[in-house]
Amino acid sequence: MSSQPNPTAGIVVIGNEILSGRTPDQNVAYIALHIGARGIVLKEVRIVPDEKLQIIEAVNTLRRRYDVVFTTGGIGTTHDDITAAAIAEAFGRPLVRNMEAVQRMDAVYGQADCTGIEGVRETRLKLADMPEGATLIDNSVSIAPGFCVENVYVLAGVPSIMQAMLQSTLERLPSGTPFLTRTISATLSEGRIAAPLAVLQEKYPEVAMGSYPKLVHKVWSVSVVLESTSGARLEAATQDVKEMFETLGITPTIGL
Amino acid sequence: MSSQPNPTAGIVVIGNEILSGRTPDQNVAYIALHIGARGIVLKEVRIVPDEKLQIIEAVNTLRRRYDVVFTTGGIGTTHDDITAAAIAEAFGRPLVRNMEAVQRMDAVYGQADCTGIEGVRETRLKLADMPEGATLIDNSVSIAPGFCVENVYVLAGVPSIMQAMLQSTLERLPSGTPFLTRTISATLSEGRIAAPLAVLQEKYPEVAMGSYPKLVHKVWSVSVVLESTSGARLEAATQDVKEMFETLGITPTIGL
Repeated sequence: MSSQPNPTAGIVVIGNEILSGRTPDQNVAYIALHIGARGIVLKEVRIVPDEKLQIIEAVNTLRRRYDVVFTTGGIGTTHDDITAAAIAEAFGRPLVRNMEAVQRMDAVYGQADCTGIEGVRETRLKLADMPEGATLIDNSVSIAPGFCVENVYVLAGVPSIMQAMLQSTLERLPSGTPFLTRTISATLSEGRIAAPLAVLQEKYPEVAMGSYPKLVHKVWSVSVVLESTSGARLEAATQDVKEMFETLGITPTIGL
Repeated sequence: MSSQPNPTAGIVVIGNEILSGRTPDQNVAYIALHIGARGIVLKEVRIVPDEKLQIIEAVNTLRRRYDVVFTTGGIGTTHDDITAAAIAEAFGRPLVRNMEAVQRMDAVYGQADCTGIEGVRETRLKLADMPEGATLIDNSVSIAPGFCVENVYVLAGVPSIMQAMLQSTLERLPSGTPFLTRTISATLSEGRIAAPLAVLQEKYPEVAMGSYPKLVHKVWSVSVVLESTSGARLEAATQDVKEMFETLGITPTIGL
């Protein structure tokens, strides 16, 4: 087992449309799963409106607290897209036009915007305004790059573009021993396993044990999720949790 | 028009299962839409793990900053359910057994747990441990109540139960002039409307204008969402945005 602690991460989701409930967020779970596979632990998410002070506060708090921070949203061409300016202010850097970003877009779009319409290149160029010293994040979907300043990765909000940007950053992120998981599920109320599961959690401090109840058509079920960087301890704990259910006369299903 | 500002809200989503990406959150959008209909503006969401210090920090920050705070998750019967204890600590109150909650559950379940299984009443009673002075939030789905301390409403994480609890609290929340919305959508890149839309936002400061691009099968579309407490200003702005699209030779669709 590695003695290095796993790297940690935070996410700042930026957008009034998420806070109004009109657009449910689709990016947090995607980022969590993909950085989790590299052993990075997501510790906190903040969803904030398109307001500069709230973006700055969230980014500055999380970038000091965690190894990596992702932001999603607010990097389009309209007046409500203020993420790049807010990140610049959070780092105390000027917002400058990144010429490599301009060149990448011009090479594909020429004098047009990102959809090939002529005559709105100026508008499109807002997408190249970034904090001084930012490095680019590739965008294989629509070219206009995201950017990175120190440990903050600024990604699009449109899910397909966010996903492409995240994929292109994964290799440069820190990594740790990946977490392995087992999910042991059964149709019963979690109240019945509360006491014996607490005993097992004491027995396996290096295996995080979560209990997640579900209620479907008035029938309770529970999934016990075990998570560890040690495959051997995980398998031993899985066996014990399985036997805990069997003692109650129930055969659980076991998955990843 | 009311001169009272709209009440504000925050949400603290509690649960490792959300941060791991295994269980995408389903509660934020539901709460946002239902409080929004009462004129309460959701200003911030924090997703934190099942760790007491992070829960306390998030709750104490948001309850001082916003009129109402909701928490979801972590009020079950197992060792990883620590929300009630964390809320008690956040308010500096002891965690005590709420006898009305006990009576409500005993009246339905007797000596059994919440699924009718005998002999685990003790485990179930953990659901009645709340900060001293908490008031109960009805749970029409599975009886075990949520609770409220000052402006903090502690709700279940299981969506159907969370929804029942929220519905039973709506009447006692503060309210404001509801926001009215119009969504004007068209198939084009938002870059084409960036400049004229910024002009319209200047013209209508009391109408919040958001621009939300979508990319489906390599075709860009955009939805302009207008939001205001003034129906008259909203209609005037909707007309201007519609004409903005028509000037570009595009007939937009208009919805709520």
